[in-house]
Amino acid sequence: MRQKQTLTERAIEIVRRQIASGSLHKGDRLPSIREFMALHRMAKNTVLNAYGRLVKEGLIESRHGAGFFVTGLATQRIDDSDTPRELDRAMDNIWLMREQLVRNPGPSRLGEGFPPAHWLKEIALERHYRKAISGGSLSAIRYGYHGGYPPLREQLAQKLADHEIDASPDNILTTSGVNSALDLIIRFSLAPGDSVMIDDPGYYLLFGKLRLGNVRMLPVPRLADGPDLDAVSRWATQERPKLFFTQSVSHNPTGSTTSPSKSRTLLALARKHNFTIVENDALAEFGPPESRRVASLGGFSHCIYVGSFSKSISAGLRSGFIACDRTLAEGLADLNMLINASTSEISERTLALILEEGSFRRHALHLAEHATRAVKHGLAKFDEMGAEVFCRPETSLYLWARFPGIDDADALARYMLEQNFVLAPGSIFSVALREPVAWSRFNVAYVDNPDFRRMIESYRDQGGEA
Amino acid sequence: MRQKQTLTERAIEIVRRQIASGSLHKGDRLPSIREFMALHRMAKNTVLNAYGRLVKEGLIESRHGAGFFVTGLATQRIDDSDTPRELDRAMDNIWLMREQLVRNPGPSRLGEGFPPAHWLKEIALERHYRKAISGGSLSAIRYGYHGGYPPLREQLAQKLADHEIDASPDNILTTSGVNSALDLIIRFSLAPGDSVMIDDPGYYLLFGKLRLGNVRMLPVPRLADGPDLDAVSRWATQERPKLFFTQSVSHNPTGSTTSPSKSRTLLALARKHNFTIVENDALAEFGPPESRRVASLGGFSHCIYVGSFSKSISAGLRSGFIACDRTLAEGLADLNMLINASTSEISERTLALILEEGSFRRHALHLAEHATRAVKHGLAKFDEMGAEVFCRPETSLYLWARFPGIDDADALARYMLEQNFVLAPGSIFSVALREPVAWSRFNVAYVDNPDFRRMIESYRDQGGEA
Repeated sequence: MRQKQTLTERAIEIVRRQIASGSLHKGDRLPSIREFMALHRMAKNTVLNAYGRLVKEGLIESRHGAGFFVTGLATQRIDDSDTPRELDRAMDNIWLMREQLVRNPGPSRLGEGFPPAHWLKEIALERHYRKAISGGSLSAIRYGYHGGYPPLREQLAQKLADHEIDASPDNILTTSGVNSALDLIIRFSLAPGDSVMIDDPGYYLLFGKLRLGNVRMLPVPRLADGPDLDAVSRWATQERPKLFFTQSVSHNPTGSTTSPSKSRTLLALARKHNFTIVENDALAEFGPPESRRVASLGGFSHCIYVGSFSKSISAGLRSGFIACDRTLAEGLADLNMLINASTSEISERTLALILEEGSFRRHALHLAEHATRAVKHGLAKFDEMGAEVFCRPETSLYLWARFPGIDDADALARYMLEQNFVLAPGSIFSVALREPVAWSRFNVAYVDNPDFRRMIESYRDQGGEA
Repeated sequence: MRQKQTLTERAIEIVRRQIASGSLHKGDRLPSIREFMALHRMAKNTVLNAYGRLVKEGLIESRHGAGFFVTGLATQRIDDSDTPRELDRAMDNIWLMREQLVRNPGPSRLGEGFPPAHWLKEIALERHYRKAISGGSLSAIRYGYHGGYPPLREQLAQKLADHEIDASPDNILTTSGVNSALDLIIRFSLAPGDSVMIDDPGYYLLFGKLRLGNVRMLPVPRLADGPDLDAVSRWATQERPKLFFTQSVSHNPTGSTTSPSKSRTLLALARKHNFTIVENDALAEFGPPESRRVASLGGFSHCIYVGSFSKSISAGLRSGFIACDRTLAEGLADLNMLINASTSEISERTLALILEEGSFRRHALHLAEHATRAVKHGLAKFDEMGAEVFCRPETSLYLWARFPGIDDADALARYMLEQNFVLAPGSIFSVALREPVAWSRFNVAYVDNPDFRRMIESYRDQGGEA
């Protein structure tokens, strides 16, 4: 009885949040009872009770035959509430992630953000951990080193050299992953009301962090060969943004890589308009070998480079890094210390061993081989299915695709969720688009799934109605 | 040549920051050349060059025989700068920490914040790590669980039961340490301009985080039996603060523990004035066995409990937790996911094993025995030296003491630093005090040091002049 009560309250809370965050406006239609059930895995009664109570409170209203709609009262009430609005808006981005974390990503894994475990197995992380642990007395650790474990920073400088990026250990600070790195950069460089450019579509956990900091996001459309530079030029002139968050290599979610000539022009624009490019290279190992990072073209004068091993070794490592101008690196390391006291020396020792032994370089080659094969296979499957793919990368972890006749990937995702298929619909990755997005992100390793194909066809045959 | 240039620039940067942060005002005297040399371990020429350039720029001026002083121009110039002021002010708190991190804490370890490594050895962290690692395939880890590794949360609920705190795993979320936990609470609950109460003296890394969030700090003087409740009452009435950050047990830096009756009255005040107590229990294992946490008196209706294992197992573990109201725990877990994506599942599996085996409970008893012995011994030494101790706890990691005839612990710390003795002077732990603070924090394990005694005496004989 008590448990049921809690679930109803949770459902109410979800609707409240969506109104507070502006994802549901006055007059907007709420998800149908059935959609809400599938979306949040709740029983029919729970959703009925929740909607009923929201109607009673006057936050939503039922229009006969048409569904439930947000009233004007709702907007007003929520505005009066105590909760900081940025926080609510920021929270909105996390439902996809939550799906990944709390629930089984489902047998299909089509929406999964990580490569299959067997692609990562050869790195033998357990063995390196064991070695790192026997290397020193863990109880003697106070806090880690300012800026991170020095031998790791040496190794990271060498890894950057492989990407033709010229960095010394002084340019590098370690973080507990790419997300923590982005958070540090935002908190260090931006004040509420500042503007930044972002890839659109782009990395949704970045959007949440920017919303949390009350930073204005200027969406730069992503094209098959990188960011739309006309948009960059226009935003830079009109809005004077401080930063441009972009992924040059194996972009999440489209799988596209910025062409070297575009990277050069982008850097020239950054110099001209005095903004800094934050280059998130979390998928470094999944890009074509001839990829050029902006950081390899002009050093760190207008570029902050962010790296990670979550997709190439394990998200369990919680180890990422920032490479940038020395003074900035010093300041970011100070801020990291102030906020987090320290990164994990155990993870950093482990990572240093992996890089030192050269096993990572070999592993990176194998990863690229896996991804190249999977992309080839995935593209063939999509072609058979009549899907349109946004770009046809040589190698990538993701493909960005849509199906003719299916215009709303959100509705598709809800339909698929009912059959335990978790998809990553395009709307998640966008801040700009208001209309339904037809695109979804697909993990290349899992496109070849006969049930998926069957379901897409049956959904299309029903005219896109769940 | 290049290296020298950089050091001079660093010295200039330090002075600029102190002016920007308001720790040096117009008309204030700068440290003498010699003091600056000792404080920042720089050569005389470096400091002379730096001061010379600052004079040329008009930021400081030399007054014959009296030293260097901040000019009006400095304040004005810095105000125009681009750096967010909160950040600069927040950075100010970190120099002590930096000493600990970057440099050797010196042979004396008197200012050290951690217990000696041999007190922690019996927990055999390496063995538990090895076991946790062999327990599962690390390459299969995506992101950790929402709210943290479930078996660990079960164990933490049991640990809380040992402190008579009634919690279920739903009340608990794990964090990567106590600092990350405090950061989450601040970002979730507070907006710029909000007020909170803090222990004064108190945990300096908390102050930095509050400054970063532009939160007003209302200092509550710490007495030998806990916070000054008259001050709490006055602040609560006048300023309506949202939170009170306090350490009930084995308070850092004074070593005092709040009496059970005071904890009860504090809770009553929280209910009356509707503020929430954030109870930082990072030194849980160092308090007297009869200690009562606020969370054990009234549950989580006006209390957020924060725990850590940095002082009782290893700071290398990077594992802490928050226990609070379920809805808040859910929200904080969302925020943690949004900011950091995930905590470290490897650390959390390791910690769960330690707690599960019962070895932690045994270890905690031994830790308390170590601390009790060290306190007894430390107090005897301080008595011999004629020191005044703030309180005489039965067990603690720290003692808070001053020496008659030495009124400025900062000056003492600078003097000691010249001989490679890193102290933790009281001013670091205070936001309220403007005058010199005579108190310092001492790690109980290291008070018995003949050189320390000799140096205090020689400093006092010189009349407190370095």
